[in-house]
Amino acid sequence: MNSMTTSSTALSTQIQLAARPSGWPTHDDFRIVTVELGPLQPGEVRVANAFISVDPYMRGRMNDTRSYVAPYALGERITGGAIGRVVESEDESLPVGTVVQHQHGWSDLIQANASTFHAVPERDGVPLSLSLHILGMTGLTAYVGLTRIAPMSAGDTVFISGAAGAVGTAAGQIARLLGAKRVIGSAGSAEKVRLLTEKYGYDTALNYKEAPIREQLAAAAPEGVDVYFDNVGGDHLEAALDVMNDNGRLALCGAIAGYNTAGPTPGPDNMMNVITRALSIQGFTLAAHLDLSSEFGARMAEWFAAGEIAYDETIVDGIENTVDAFLDMMRGGNIGKMLVRVGASEATSVGTHGSELK
Amino acid sequence: MNSMTTSSTALSTQIQLAARPSGWPTHDDFRIVTVELGPLQPGEVRVANAFISVDPYMRGRMNDTRSYVAPYALGERITGGAIGRVVESEDESLPVGTVVQHQHGWSDLIQANASTFHAVPERDGVPLSLSLHILGMTGLTAYVGLTRIAPMSAGDTVFISGAAGAVGTAAGQIARLLGAKRVIGSAGSAEKVRLLTEKYGYDTALNYKEAPIREQLAAAAPEGVDVYFDNVGGDHLEAALDVMNDNGRLALCGAIAGYNTAGPTPGPDNMMNVITRALSIQGFTLAAHLDLSSEFGARMAEWFAAGEIAYDETIVDGIENTVDAFLDMMRGGNIGKMLVRVGASEATSVGTHGSELK
Repeated sequence: MNSMTTSSTALSTQIQLAARPSGWPTHDDFRIVTVELGPLQPGEVRVANAFISVDPYMRGRMNDTRSYVAPYALGERITGGAIGRVVESEDESLPVGTVVQHQHGWSDLIQANASTFHAVPERDGVPLSLSLHILGMTGLTAYVGLTRIAPMSAGDTVFISGAAGAVGTAAGQIARLLGAKRVIGSAGSAEKVRLLTEKYGYDTALNYKEAPIREQLAAAAPEGVDVYFDNVGGDHLEAALDVMNDNGRLALCGAIAGYNTAGPTPGPDNMMNVITRALSIQGFTLAAHLDLSSEFGARMAEWFAAGEIAYDETIVDGIENTVDAFLDMMRGGNIGKMLVRVGASEATSVGTHGSELK
Repeated sequence: MNSMTTSSTALSTQIQLAARPSGWPTHDDFRIVTVELGPLQPGEVRVANAFISVDPYMRGRMNDTRSYVAPYALGERITGGAIGRVVESEDESLPVGTVVQHQHGWSDLIQANASTFHAVPERDGVPLSLSLHILGMTGLTAYVGLTRIAPMSAGDTVFISGAAGAVGTAAGQIARLLGAKRVIGSAGSAEKVRLLTEKYGYDTALNYKEAPIREQLAAAAPEGVDVYFDNVGGDHLEAALDVMNDNGRLALCGAIAGYNTAGPTPGPDNMMNVITRALSIQGFTLAAHLDLSSEFGARMAEWFAAGEIAYDETIVDGIENTVDAFLDMMRGGNIGKMLVRVGASEATSVGTHGSELK
């Protein structure tokens, strides 16, 4: 049996980095181009994306600075997570119709060697998009942070900043499932803090736009904090250092507060606490911890099947709106995971959806 | 046989904390008092101190803030390391003449239960004072930092701030003996940086008073730094964060740059590097790591016997000059360990001495 198709040319809309942003990116820093994809070569597949991920770490890759991943090259497509379906195939391992996840990024149609995609099983009641967040890298990031980087124990008090974002909503639920005594989160709107306590298992949620987070956290955590999962940096890291208990652990996952400032910003004024309280601050990115994927996958599948996992998605339709989605995510416009939905057949209005409130 | 003596009363000169310093301590923050020691009770010994230790961490204990050790109480003796000889004894375990080390602190004559002292063996060619630094807590602090907190591997590049101080001179030599590829140190005078390279095995020594340490370190470490041992904090920590290699480890042992500022000081402006380079920052104090004492003792004894260990002492004579010694140490007036020598029979002029240049 040969399930391969006859390959043709096709047009792909892609978003490239046109200039390196200084401070907040603007549309001028990006370029939307249409490229013609040639016929597939042996071993290649062509994939029509369904969902594209926009993530905070991408802002760092737009700078030309040393980091754990190379900067995006000017004039090249923004790469990152996406999920779609094989529409043409010259490789038997990925026949037409297969759902695949990949890192080819901001494009509606992509073709490349089959080895750069991996098949995602389709399961009833599990939206494909979840592989881009709670069941995928985002969930794994939260799990790695709380089990390896800043390992928590049952009975710990845990503080999570950026708690209403993709990683934060995952981290709060995982902290709860791992037996945290108290989970405290911060977010930037009344709606977000409501969701944190009503849907995501947070005991206390602080709206950092209402009062300095430093004051709010000190008042909210009189018993101190054992584990801090940082997605924000800046004033949030400083607030956490004030209240950490002896031998406290801080996992630095993101620092969105500083991503779009043009120059350096002062660090926490209370680093002395790191010494006097014997704190551990560990920065991490996921690449070095993929060995936890199968452990995470097994536990998350169990939690998910048991109905223990909630999620939200903020969905923007249309590849041409990807930059807007990215910028809106950086400004906190999302609840849960920000995604771009690609493909006219699935297009609906812009909006948020997710699992039901429990 | 009964070696106990007949106990009498005696006068003890002690230095107490009179007020909590704000910023740099002044003489007004201390009080020199003479107290009468009553006859020894059963189980007690009386010790005439020979050397008293003045250490940076003591500044922290003068503040009334939460820390790993309780603050000094107002109106009570400043406690800390000292070494002396038993002059009267009501306990058979420590007969008159025994050399003992203890934590009773800033006093010329002290008496307390024998269990609060421990005997130090006298060895030919090994000055007693070394138990207060390179062979004692100071050396152990350096060893813990480089083997447990920011574990170094042979071939690593190591940066040590405050390198000409008691911990720094120990850390540089231990890094060298553990196989560092390069050891870089910082200090605050031309004489100090000369000693670092000539006597203490540093490959490169930077005088932070000549130019910003951030610029000097970046120029001195083009290959990056794997392990940073921090005694200074502030601009030195910031400089280190600039040049750390991926998966670099930072042991925060001290932050003398900030000990005498009246208010908080901005932290490093490059904390983002902690994430992008997956750095580990671990604060520590010795109390939680005393389990490494015997391992350290064995290795250090071997190194010392092999003539591998150099040291310097900056000695101030007279219990009444202890506060001056402490303040001078905080200003960097010492090379190697700052000590106060007590007891007229051993008094000599103020000065520095140590092992010979190798």
